[in-house]
Amino acid sequence: MAGNTFGQLFRITTFGESHGAAIGGVVDGCPAGIEFDEVLLIREMQRRRPGQSQIVSPRNEDDIVQILSGIFEGKTTGTPIGFTIQNKDQKSVDYEKYKDVFRPGHADHTWNEKFGTRDHRGGGRASARETSARVAAGAIAKMFLNKTSQIKIHAFVSDIHDIHLDRNYNLYDLSLSETNVVRCPDPTLAQKMIGLIEETRAQKNSLGGIITCIASGLSVGLGEPVFDKLPAVLAHAMMSINAVKGFEMGEGFASAAMKGTEMNDQWSDDGKLTSNHAGGVSGGISNGQDLVFRIAFKPTSSISSLQSALTASGEVTQIGIEGRHDPCVVPRAVPIVEAMCAIVLADFLLLTKTNQA
Amino acid sequence: MAGNTFGQLFRITTFGESHGAAIGGVVDGCPAGIEFDEVLLIREMQRRRPGQSQIVSPRNEDDIVQILSGIFEGKTTGTPIGFTIQNKDQKSVDYEKYKDVFRPGHADHTWNEKFGTRDHRGGGRASARETSARVAAGAIAKMFLNKTSQIKIHAFVSDIHDIHLDRNYNLYDLSLSETNVVRCPDPTLAQKMIGLIEETRAQKNSLGGIITCIASGLSVGLGEPVFDKLPAVLAHAMMSINAVKGFEMGEGFASAAMKGTEMNDQWSDDGKLTSNHAGGVSGGISNGQDLVFRIAFKPTSSISSLQSALTASGEVTQIGIEGRHDPCVVPRAVPIVEAMCAIVLADFLLLTKTNQA
Amino acid sequence: MAGNTFGQLFRITTFGESHGAAIGGVVDGCPAGIEFDEVLLIREMQRRRPGQSQIVSPRNEDDIVQILSGIFEGKTTGTPIGFTIQNKDQKSVDYEKYKDVFRPGHADHTWNEKFGTRDHRGGGRASARETSARVAAGAIAKMFLNKTSQIKIHAFVSDIHDIHLDRNYNLYDLSLSETNVVRCPDPTLAQKMIGLIEETRAQKNSLGGIITCIASGLSVGLGEPVFDKLPAVLAHAMMSINAVKGFEMGEGFASAAMKGTEMNDQWSDDGKLTSNHAGGVSGGISNGQDLVFRIAFKPTSSISSLQSALTASGEVTQIGIEGRHDPCVVPRAVPIVEAMCAIVLADFLLLTKTNQA
Amino acid sequence: MAGNTFGQLFRITTFGESHGAAIGGVVDGCPAGIEFDEVLLIREMQRRRPGQSQIVSPRNEDDIVQILSGIFEGKTTGTPIGFTIQNKDQKSVDYEKYKDVFRPGHADHTWNEKFGTRDHRGGGRASARETSARVAAGAIAKMFLNKTSQIKIHAFVSDIHDIHLDRNYNLYDLSLSETNVVRCPDPTLAQKMIGLIEETRAQKNSLGGIITCIASGLSVGLGEPVFDKLPAVLAHAMMSINAVKGFEMGEGFASAAMKGTEMNDQWSDDGKLTSNHAGGVSGGISNGQDLVFRIAFKPTSSISSLQSALTASGEVTQIGIEGRHDPCVVPRAVPIVEAMCAIVLADFLLLTKTNQA
Repeated sequence: MAGNTFGQLFRITTFGESHGAAIGGVVDGCPAGIEFDEVLLIREMQRRRPGQSQIVSPRNEDDIVQILSGIFEGKTTGTPIGFTIQNKDQKSVDYEKYKDVFRPGHADHTWNEKFGTRDHRGGGRASARETSARVAAGAIAKMFLNKTSQIKIHAFVSDIHDIHLDRNYNLYDLSLSETNVVRCPDPTLAQKMIGLIEETRAQKNSLGGIITCIASGLSVGLGEPVFDKLPAVLAHAMMSINAVKGFEMGEGFASAAMKGTEMNDQWSDDGKLTSNHAGGVSGGISNGQDLVFRIAFKPTSSISSLQSALTASGEVTQIGIEGRHDPCVVPRAVPIVEAMCAIVLADFLLLTKTNQA
Repeated sequence: MAGNTFGQLFRITTFGESHGAAIGGVVDGCPAGIEFDEVLLIREMQRRRPGQSQIVSPRNEDDIVQILSGIFEGKTTGTPIGFTIQNKDQKSVDYEKYKDVFRPGHADHTWNEKFGTRDHRGGGRASARETSARVAAGAIAKMFLNKTSQIKIHAFVSDIHDIHLDRNYNLYDLSLSETNVVRCPDPTLAQKMIGLIEETRAQKNSLGGIITCIASGLSVGLGEPVFDKLPAVLAHAMMSINAVKGFEMGEGFASAAMKGTEMNDQWSDDGKLTSNHAGGVSGGISNGQDLVFRIAFKPTSSISSLQSALTASGEVTQIGIEGRHDPCVVPRAVPIVEAMCAIVLADFLLLTKTNQA
Repeated sequence: MAGNTFGQLFRITTFGESHGAAIGGVVDGCPAGIEFDEVLLIREMQRRRPGQSQIVSPRNEDDIVQILSGIFEGKTTGTPIGFTIQNKDQKSVDYEKYKDVFRPGHADHTWNEKFGTRDHRGGGRASARETSARVAAGAIAKMFLNKTSQIKIHAFVSDIHDIHLDRNYNLYDLSLSETNVVRCPDPTLAQKMIGLIEETRAQKNSLGGIITCIASGLSVGLGEPVFDKLPAVLAHAMMSINAVKGFEMGEGFASAAMKGTEMNDQWSDDGKLTSNHAGGVSGGISNGQDLVFRIAFKPTSSISSLQSALTASGEVTQIGIEGRHDPCVVPRAVPIVEAMCAIVLADFLLLTKTNQA
Repeated sequence: MAGNTFGQLFRITTFGESHGAAIGGVVDGCPAGIEFDEVLLIREMQRRRPGQSQIVSPRNEDDIVQILSGIFEGKTTGTPIGFTIQNKDQKSVDYEKYKDVFRPGHADHTWNEKFGTRDHRGGGRASARETSARVAAGAIAKMFLNKTSQIKIHAFVSDIHDIHLDRNYNLYDLSLSETNVVRCPDPTLAQKMIGLIEETRAQKNSLGGIITCIASGLSVGLGEPVFDKLPAVLAHAMMSINAVKGFEMGEGFASAAMKGTEMNDQWSDDGKLTSNHAGGVSGGISNGQDLVFRIAFKPTSSISSLQSALTASGEVTQIGIEGRHDPCVVPRAVPIVEAMCAIVLADFLLLTKTNQA
């Protein structure tokens, strides 16, 4: 067990259920001397917060992070940073009806079998509410990256259902992604995506999509062979996020249909690589180019259309999931992806300090 | 650092360079009392071995595994199983010319920057020769699975370049995959794939492809939330294999274009799920259905076509990589994928013993 | 870094400074289905609490543990148990004078050098107030042991300064140790110890002592060779407690002056060992006898006698430490020793489930 | 399980049984660029080797370490260093008689219960022959310390049975300890110790003793609070060595009988500490003074006097252990203590690189 810790040197441990008293966590291993940037923390939490727009869950949580330790006189001290996020708008009574029903696409059944019990309220620990602690921890990782590196991480929604951005992200002004509620850098497609999400919700259905994440400013050398290559640990981090079904670096699955002459990134006379098919890694180690990866999210499992579910007593029943769900989790997952990416890179930056004598 | 260990309870540590004295490793945490199945070990090593067919590297290694500890009177004793695999057919002289050249698509440059040095001979530790130790460790994991579970793992080549199997693997007799050198269960497409690989090699080029892996017989409950979900750890394992660029579970990237009503697996009246879009996991935990995942491999970086490479002194030079390379790494990667899958499942089987009081 | 986590499967992570907002922690890996015994938790916290008697620090903390997650309907759910303990009676102003002074025997100087900063208030994270989280986590470990084993842990004060109990603990009724404030099972010696502590405090000085810990009811087989032998991990746990300077199992240091014929425990005709010189372990693994170990505590570093201290600017100054200190930390350390012992044994009980196929 | 790995960043994994094919291990995380000092490696192995003198086991092993990876052109490359040490002089037939007998003081019984089996030949993995891999790994750690720090480690025999050196090690010329076979820096007492050991062996008995270890040249700041304090991890390392029953830092158990005014190390006007009662640590972190710790070894369990042992069928039998045993393990344990100390310090040196931003 003990699966609630992630990272080796920059390490996060989280706890908390959707309808419990609080979500929280501990960041251990953040070096001393980092300015604590409360504005950054609040901004990241707001980006993930439910109720932020018309296309997300209306659950009303202010998601204020209470820092309990590890910060003194405005800076990190090298001691663990404990924090909590109160749950305020639990409506557990909404979930009484699901107490003895395993919802399709959810963790209800597997969790119940695994542990012999579960906190059924709002999905308990399997709820994506758990990710609020990741975003808080990721904000601290971003503070570390801001202080000690040139790394900038930018994730955005590149695909919702059948609406796709071009895979060449250089065609877009990525800063526009935070100017609309779906977090897509193409304003026209963003409106189409928003419309499709609203329409789908009205149809009692849900949508999947893809987040593309770009990290720039990496030094050469991040990633630890052979098992902890940068893409391997990133994949671990991303595939641990609720509803994620796929991960790819650079050309990813498309590379399976390419030839060596097309895929290999070659050097130009100025000593720089002329392309970035690999997505910023060579042999599993950062090569100084932009890190580029994509994460596939399935459509939200909770839909109000009727579906066949299993009861605890082994019968099948028809249920439509009422409650305050996102018709598409992808827009709110953007800060979660960035948070996990920041944590991975912070950890590798620290590990890399020990590569040479 | 210390990235050469994988797993928590069933844990492997590997060592060795392509042209060093030996590859080897240690399996720690394998329970006592498992029959040591030497036939299985030899078979797995043969499946990965270079020189096994006309479409792979002709390097001549017999890849005999010497077990040094942990087995007594034909069974595991619960102590670490150390093993070595001698390197016999090193032709290091072939690599003298690459000593001061960083090859496109390879780890040469990043590794050199990271460590300030590298064993350039045959790619050193970045060579896929490293994976021979994974296959040996995976064979031990398979012995454990055979003894203590119903789990069977079957990986096969489902796609080479633009030749694709149907994604519904139930259409095929998977046992046929080991009857041809490309490891594809459709004999007709297998021949096409083989022809395409040979043709591509003749053109001094290389090909990518996709491996699909099916694991059946899992109990419900494997995977440790929230960071060590089954897909997360599988992705970590698979993305750590050389040349892998993508990983997906079940519908994977296709799920991003699906709706909730299409993606959710529902229960039928007999208490079983009627579909397996999720790929055998619910909420990141095994649900008892077949585990289904796909891994994308890029085309081999080593091609004999001329490419622009960087020299250690910062100049660009044209090189064609001669030597004994696979024109497509995918067929030989099949046993590696199975090995890593077996290690992940063995580890989770052990972890799961501690979930309930 | 990341030194704030202990344990492999039953794993605790703690945070918090002496004068920060709260102390807290996360217990991850506690199996599901354990009854949550709040009475036990409160009792353990009361045993460690300052202000409990005339011979300990008068700091007034009620040390109520707020459980934030992981418990549902009175039982553990297998998810992480997050908790906090508010700091209420901080008198940070007392410590302003030590802001730029490194106190003798304290972590002030080393911590400041290590991290380039420190929270000087009350010793910050280096304060033994940190151990309140250990006791809370240990109480959960005890709940697990109570549910799943016959293990009982009993620590007591066997030595204060030059007042020593006989090393044969069978001579005493150990249950008496909790009937006096010094936690010594011999009522007469207990009164002497209390008198000596009070007298020493009046002399502006402090005392050291020894805690003996007995754990009974262990099954054979706890401990993981070769690095995680039971005595090794116990020593790690105990030596991590503030003010501990020594650890020994069974005869311990005395065994260095014994001969093989004296030290070896031999079997009698009923298949039981006739002595327990080893302290309950053979080859580093529990042998079913009582686990017996002793922990040496140095005298409290904070004394009100004048001592030479170093200032941040490199000068030497004379200081007497005022404030609310224990003249002898040993009585309050008894529940801390038990807590760490419970955590170690809980972890090994879980690990042991995976030793055989 | 998985107890055969030690360390976080500088990490060793070992394998091998006393009478198996080989002992071996993997050092992972040693930074690149360290000169490989073969002379140092051979010297350390010789210090631990059986057959080196008249007071140790006559088993004839040359203990040559074969390095299989991780070294290229005379330097470490940052990749794992795999190595093996062949077992050559196994006389397994000597142990046939112990196949179904659990020897007093040995791991036979506990191991058998734990794993349901054991390699009984020569104690299998529980044999101190396992420590040859520790010494090899420790030699690599020493190479790292030599290259990157001023740290020097010196262990010596300070006590054999009732023959004791003064605890003030500054009274001795420590370099003399390697000039006699018992490794005691006082030549006169050394001869007494040797005489006592020989005499005791003739009496079919064995002796215990104490090793004192001094490490000088540490920077301030090694050790990671709160669980991985320097004394805690050192104790873990030392208590994992065969036959060790106690560990203490500085005044150790004697501090339990001291007062605060006696124990606290105070600063003199030149900014230096005037005493070292603490043994080189303050608050669990190195303070720049000599690290001083002592390790108690019990007398060898294997003695040729008759003792009561348990048979596998539950009966008691009288046995005298014949074979090639050390009458006192302490002299040969000196390099093992140094090796584990070097590994701990190497690990902390790497960890310390990440304490500050």
